[in-house]
Amino acid sequence: MADPRFFHVAGPFTLARLAELSGATLAEGADADLLLADVAPLEVAGPQDFSFLDNRKYAAAFEASKAGACVVGAEMAERAPAGMALLLSSDPYRAYARIAQAFYPVTAPQPWVAPTAWVDPSASIGEGCRLEPGAVVLAGAQIGTGCRIGANAVIGDGVVIGADCIVGANATVSHAVVGNRVNIYPGARIGQDGFGFAMGPQGHLKVPQLGRVVIGDAVEIGANTTIDRGAGPDTVIGAGSMIDNLVQIGHNVQMGRACVIVSQVGISGSTRLGDFVAAGGQAGITGHLKIGSGARIAAQSGVMRDIAPGETVGGAPAVGMKDWLRQVAALGKLARRKG
Amino acid sequence: MADPRFFHVAGPFTLARLAELSGATLAEGADADLLLADVAPLEVAGPQDFSFLDNRKYAAAFEASKAGACVVGAEMAERAPAGMALLLSSDPYRAYARIAQAFYPVTAPQPWVAPTAWVDPSASIGEGCRLEPGAVVLAGAQIGTGCRIGANAVIGDGVVIGADCIVGANATVSHAVVGNRVNIYPGARIGQDGFGFAMGPQGHLKVPQLGRVVIGDAVEIGANTTIDRGAGPDTVIGAGSMIDNLVQIGHNVQMGRACVIVSQVGISGSTRLGDFVAAGGQAGITGHLKIGSGARIAAQSGVMRDIAPGETVGGAPAVGMKDWLRQVAALGKLARRKG
Amino acid sequence: MADPRFFHVAGPFTLARLAELSGATLAEGADADLLLADVAPLEVAGPQDFSFLDNRKYAAAFEASKAGACVVGAEMAERAPAGMALLLSSDPYRAYARIAQAFYPVTAPQPWVAPTAWVDPSASIGEGCRLEPGAVVLAGAQIGTGCRIGANAVIGDGVVIGADCIVGANATVSHAVVGNRVNIYPGARIGQDGFGFAMGPQGHLKVPQLGRVVIGDAVEIGANTTIDRGAGPDTVIGAGSMIDNLVQIGHNVQMGRACVIVSQVGISGSTRLGDFVAAGGQAGITGHLKIGSGARIAAQSGVMRDIAPGETVGGAPAVGMKDWLRQVAALGKLARRKG
Repeated sequence: MADPRFFHVAGPFTLARLAELSGATLAEGADADLLLADVAPLEVAGPQDFSFLDNRKYAAAFEASKAGACVVGAEMAERAPAGMALLLSSDPYRAYARIAQAFYPVTAPQPWVAPTAWVDPSASIGEGCRLEPGAVVLAGAQIGTGCRIGANAVIGDGVVIGADCIVGANATVSHAVVGNRVNIYPGARIGQDGFGFAMGPQGHLKVPQLGRVVIGDAVEIGANTTIDRGAGPDTVIGAGSMIDNLVQIGHNVQMGRACVIVSQVGISGSTRLGDFVAAGGQAGITGHLKIGSGARIAAQSGVMRDIAPGETVGGAPAVGMKDWLRQVAALGKLARRKG
Repeated sequence: MADPRFFHVAGPFTLARLAELSGATLAEGADADLLLADVAPLEVAGPQDFSFLDNRKYAAAFEASKAGACVVGAEMAERAPAGMALLLSSDPYRAYARIAQAFYPVTAPQPWVAPTAWVDPSASIGEGCRLEPGAVVLAGAQIGTGCRIGANAVIGDGVVIGADCIVGANATVSHAVVGNRVNIYPGARIGQDGFGFAMGPQGHLKVPQLGRVVIGDAVEIGANTTIDRGAGPDTVIGAGSMIDNLVQIGHNVQMGRACVIVSQVGISGSTRLGDFVAAGGQAGITGHLKIGSGARIAAQSGVMRDIAPGETVGGAPAVGMKDWLRQVAALGKLARRKG
Repeated sequence: MADPRFFHVAGPFTLARLAELSGATLAEGADADLLLADVAPLEVAGPQDFSFLDNRKYAAAFEASKAGACVVGAEMAERAPAGMALLLSSDPYRAYARIAQAFYPVTAPQPWVAPTAWVDPSASIGEGCRLEPGAVVLAGAQIGTGCRIGANAVIGDGVVIGADCIVGANATVSHAVVGNRVNIYPGARIGQDGFGFAMGPQGHLKVPQLGRVVIGDAVEIGANTTIDRGAGPDTVIGAGSMIDNLVQIGHNVQMGRACVIVSQVGISGSTRLGDFVAAGGQAGITGHLKIGSGARIAAQSGVMRDIAPGETVGGAPAVGMKDWLRQVAALGKLARRKG
């Protein structure tokens, strides 16, 4: 069970209720009235715990699990250990997400302005906000209702933040307009100058960065990630996009809806991403490109050309996924022959 | 126009004045007395706005732009839309930088020591400084005149910072001597211990890191970038160098003047860079190397040998640029043949 | 000598005492009573300074050095300049580490709770702790004896930190149980949500992250490094592991003892590392892998499969080191032939 110093469990819930919440179906023979007290990983779950199997790598752990109930794909049902009640789902991870959210609901912050928080008199703070110790809200900033501004976070002059947002401890936000239900993780840097200057043998000349960062609803921005403001146009992060830790997003980047950007990716200035683009860890994308909706970019790729909608690429310079796999195979074969 | 919540525009300026400020020349037929109220990107500029064209990718936007005036290279002049006044420059981006700086000048900070800032009694703060809420200046530190120390930034014991510097919100500086007009972005970490220890099967033994970080004038250090102090010698960043976000610079690195280090680059310990070295995003440079002045390192390169002055390299391990392009072509061809 | 604004030297010590402290042996003819006042790099050391030679790249500096004494491997002894006293060691860097630690000992913090620090009434702070200005310790957190909590660092609800730890300025720690003598560098982010959500065309659904980060004794965690808490299991960092700056460690990662993880490495979720694993800068390791004890992963590698204990790998996708070197050679040859 989750450490009670950090997490507070709701429940218990009946299996029938969990099926309802998650859209999964009760497997034959499963006891609809079974009471589940918590969620837990397969390896440590006990008879009162609910678990999930989503990755076949963990099938052995599933077969040996003592979990009271579990959500799985139908094709795995027959491998369940005796006594485990099953929920069946075509997307067991999504079903588990709903169930875990029921056991560990996100609660509204306890309203508070800590005595060591700083709120400029011209700033406006919505009802129900929590400003933790050392949080700073500068002149003219507007914070919507129900927000949590973490300890020592800094909200710059004029920044607008919507309702029900979380700004993590020690994060900074400047020159930005942020939607609702946005989660900015600790140490994220949003809105600073982009890397814009005219290079020259007589020295580099800074170009004023006059745009903003505009962030849609329900975006997540990972720890220590940096998003520069636009140079003239805005930098835009579309609603529902998930950005991991230590990602760099350059000025004027326009990211569509529900993109998934894994840790340590870098996206150079003025590149435009469609919706549902996925980029694997440490991938790099050059500036001024167009990446079509649904494109998938493998980890560590180096993207130096436009990517068509739905295309999957890998390698550096990135090519179509099949071509990259052929390159890897061909090089391996060549090296063995020469050896 | 730039969002007035974040930016304050100066001006207006006549076209003749902008030509003078930027060193560009009035094109034939351009009205020297034309008044410009602001700068704006080509796509959104109106008759009172000044814009620029620097990248041929945006030639169509130039042809369709409603900007009142624009700076371009002479070769693009004939593609200007009717009614647009032109300034001509062999370096339009640099000319635009000067003009945008006129419209959006960097102003001296409003002197202030916020009530929640902390200044050790033994620290000295120059005239005209602004210490925002939660800023911390520890024992013996010396801050020059006209500096802005951002909210919740931390200046460590004994640190020396020159005049007219900006230390961004939540940045930390320790064990460092910083020049004038240096801009340290939010979340940058300067002066912590380098990654120095004697490895061994009985455990790793920390080696005291006894050097400093010495930063020249007019350096920019990006958000969440980390620069470790020297192990014995200093880590040195030469005047005018531009360092982007999330860059790692190891102990004892010596970087010359006016280098350009793009986001997520890593430079390992004791490597020396000459002047005007440029490293593309996510490039990695091994320790104890010499990178000659004017060397150019492509994005994502892995540099494992010394680089001669002026050499351009790419790939991992990095080779001369032409060799790298040949490798890419040869591998692509090989893969297609085998496929 | 180290800048006295930042460092305070102990000593002097006799050469005999330094031999004793370091386990090195006095070379023939070395004066056991020679007094050394400081340590210094070979290039700048004078007659009262102690230095070291560990990397043959610096043999010329050794031959020209004016250091009064130096620790070297026996094979280099004959190249010492006249008048330099030698200590001999099979591991001169380790011997130097001990000696430098004697000259620059880590001292206990001066106990203090700065007036602008915030300590929740339900938190407990051990004896001898120093909480610098703006440090925040939230509800229920427990800090062991002799800890230094840097300026504007944030210790979250319920976090447990052992004795003699350092939490750097502006670092954040949440959902974590931390051992003794752990050094968390400025700006590190520990314990935030992992990147866990169920992707889907209707949007991405957040999966509650219910584990912790558990950190063993004597771990170092570099500046701006991010370590996500577990999703259900914990994220675990084994005792004595050294983690450099800007490293990303995903949820559920289990790292063994004394691993060395160089800057900008990314380790994806649920991967398990044995003891003494070393990963070079910018390497990426995919999720759900097993990396055996003593494995070595070259810089910039992309590890996509399990690695056997003791195996050395390089390249992307990573292969055995010899195979990678063969690939590099074969590709270079192929490109030259085609050119």
